[in-house]
Amino acid sequence: MSTQEEHPTLLIPGPIEFDDAVLQAMSHYSESHVGAAFVSVFGETLSMLRKLFQTSNPASQPFVISGSGTLGWDQVAANLTEPGDEVLVLHTGYFADSFADCFDTYGAKPTQLKAPIGDRPQQDAVEKALKEKKYKLITVTHVDTSTGVLSDIKSLAELVHRVSPETLIVVDGVCSVGSEEIRFDDWGIDVVLTASQKAIGCPAGLSIVMASGRAIETFKARKTKPASYFGSWKNWLPIMQNYEAKKASYFATPSPQLVRALHTSLTQILASPLDERFARHKEVSQKIKQTITSLGLKQLAEKPENQANGMTAIYLPEGIAAAQILPNLLQKKVIFAGGLHKEIASKYIRFGHMGVSVMDPRKNDIDRALDALKSGLSEAGYQAP
Amino acid sequence: MSTQEEHPTLLIPGPIEFDDAVLQAMSHYSESHVGAAFVSVFGETLSMLRKLFQTSNPASQPFVISGSGTLGWDQVAANLTEPGDEVLVLHTGYFADSFADCFDTYGAKPTQLKAPIGDRPQQDAVEKALKEKKYKLITVTHVDTSTGVLSDIKSLAELVHRVSPETLIVVDGVCSVGSEEIRFDDWGIDVVLTASQKAIGCPAGLSIVMASGRAIETFKARKTKPASYFGSWKNWLPIMQNYEAKKASYFATPSPQLVRALHTSLTQILASPLDERFARHKEVSQKIKQTITSLGLKQLAEKPENQANGMTAIYLPEGIAAAQILPNLLQKKVIFAGGLHKEIASKYIRFGHMGVSVMDPRKNDIDRALDALKSGLSEAGYQAP
Repeated sequence: MSTQEEHPTLLIPGPIEFDDAVLQAMSHYSESHVGAAFVSVFGETLSMLRKLFQTSNPASQPFVISGSGTLGWDQVAANLTEPGDEVLVLHTGYFADSFADCFDTYGAKPTQLKAPIGDRPQQDAVEKALKEKKYKLITVTHVDTSTGVLSDIKSLAELVHRVSPETLIVVDGVCSVGSEEIRFDDWGIDVVLTASQKAIGCPAGLSIVMASGRAIETFKARKTKPASYFGSWKNWLPIMQNYEAKKASYFATPSPQLVRALHTSLTQILASPLDERFARHKEVSQKIKQTITSLGLKQLAEKPENQANGMTAIYLPEGIAAAQILPNLLQKKVIFAGGLHKEIASKYIRFGHMGVSVMDPRKNDIDRALDALKSGLSEAGYQAP
Repeated sequence: MSTQEEHPTLLIPGPIEFDDAVLQAMSHYSESHVGAAFVSVFGETLSMLRKLFQTSNPASQPFVISGSGTLGWDQVAANLTEPGDEVLVLHTGYFADSFADCFDTYGAKPTQLKAPIGDRPQQDAVEKALKEKKYKLITVTHVDTSTGVLSDIKSLAELVHRVSPETLIVVDGVCSVGSEEIRFDDWGIDVVLTASQKAIGCPAGLSIVMASGRAIETFKARKTKPASYFGSWKNWLPIMQNYEAKKASYFATPSPQLVRALHTSLTQILASPLDERFARHKEVSQKIKQTITSLGLKQLAEKPENQANGMTAIYLPEGIAAAQILPNLLQKKVIFAGGLHKEIASKYIRFGHMGVSVMDPRKNDIDRALDALKSGLSEAGYQAP
């Protein structure tokens, strides 16, 4: 039974619906951030993140810091680049532009490799770019929340290892960790950054990062100070290592409530094999995409291999605007998101299908949402083929 | 009646005990960060902060960003200073050292004006320093959490306005906002930065800043880009202005649960006149300090005018270490904090008395804590005079 007040089902690409136990952890009574009980919970949370990211290399380093997913960009730019460093940013939507802006803020030189809307840079283009210049790191948005475009991290990592092995591989996994397969060690990734409120299933407010031993070594070898104070690994690295060793430590006050909620959601996620979780997200996503297609609608990500498993960005029929269909869906107790890609924002909607809405067999959020979409479009005058 | 599970009373200088309604808001069901309901709550929260800081000047600008109090330092350093700018940092404990380090990170040149432990820089020393160099801004820790030393913001601001009127006045109010009087407009302050988990009474996870119109103009006139991305007012200013005007806006995902909790705590605080709140904190603080003195114990802040109203840092009797007395107090269901000032950390303890533990007439947290301290010291072999 849910303890949550009745409310419209939130099916945007984050924040997602949360499990009751996770929300209950949010209201945990106040406790000291350096008290034994919280130190233990924080330490376990960091260790569980290793499992979520599928890394057993002890040199890998998790970070959990109060902030949003965006703070992960600052952590990468301020700790892993120094002024003048060249960075290759693969562009699949809104978020690459912002990540590039973040690099520029800290003095690195981002080069964006773009693809048409709904597509992603192809392997040969990436290979060509990597051969033209020495890049300190390459970034890729695993799932771009603005377009629903999925990148192929495994193949990309193989390419980088072959063509430019010294280039660090940074994955923006804000909209993928927990819904898309990520094998940190096997694929040889250097950083995955993410946030709490998407497929990880914990309310917003935490920046979550996994860094490889090689990333940490790169950080330690830097010639200049980290270019951020709040995001500085110099400040946070000893704190994270101490907490994971169950020793209290202080740089800035963490949020016991948010960390307890994260602990709860990670415990739930790790109770089943991760492969089952990813397979289930894929299965539900396929069903959604088939329904969308059968309705005669197109996705921003046209090619199947470009389609994320935790969200779907859907072009609306000609003559129907997002501002028209979204309030209709809200009346049907379903919340989708509007478009975020500047050029076409009013022409599409985004449907998030991650976490408990997909995994909890007691919920039928997805079927309800598809029904709402069908009748909403029909009420707007659209006739499916 | 409390809905909180029975637990030891948290009387450290933050996080503090939270009200039931605030914790219930933390477990609010998931909602869109750009949905009408949350936009309205966030907008009201920003407007209520104006009242808390006692500013009615529409040019003042509140910021609420996921992070910790520390992020406020980054906001000040990265938005209000440019490389090479001189900054005067008044030192009353641990936190001035860290703030100075933050300025250094962003290229400003901090000069620290120190005082002996337990004291604060005197007006004549500040006046002399201000006349020696042109400072872009001066910072003062209103209450230093490491020492319990209170600064006199009103007199300091008068001095700065007289001697160096162009210098921006920045108050670190992490351990003072909500427990010490702050009159933003009347005193002519340019920035107060704080966090959610102390006298404001909302769980940790939010950086809260109020900037004056003059500070915003200084920011807008800068010749270089803001030196932080996540903390950049260029990114956040339009977001805060839009939310307060009840318009959805996106830069990075805020935490609806934390913002709702802040909304709840601010509503409670503003339900009574602020002057009554400050008077009550002072009254309870006086009682605590009299008891401490009657026990023959000294405070780090020896002079009455240096003593904070929301916390007390207490030297332990010779031969009794913090590591001995704190576990004893925990057995008595009272949590105090150990020392934080490096040089004397083991020799003192810190007692936080802010928020509901002071304001809620149904609680007798303070009396219980004083009783626990008395018997704890007695059990450790100390005989009060």
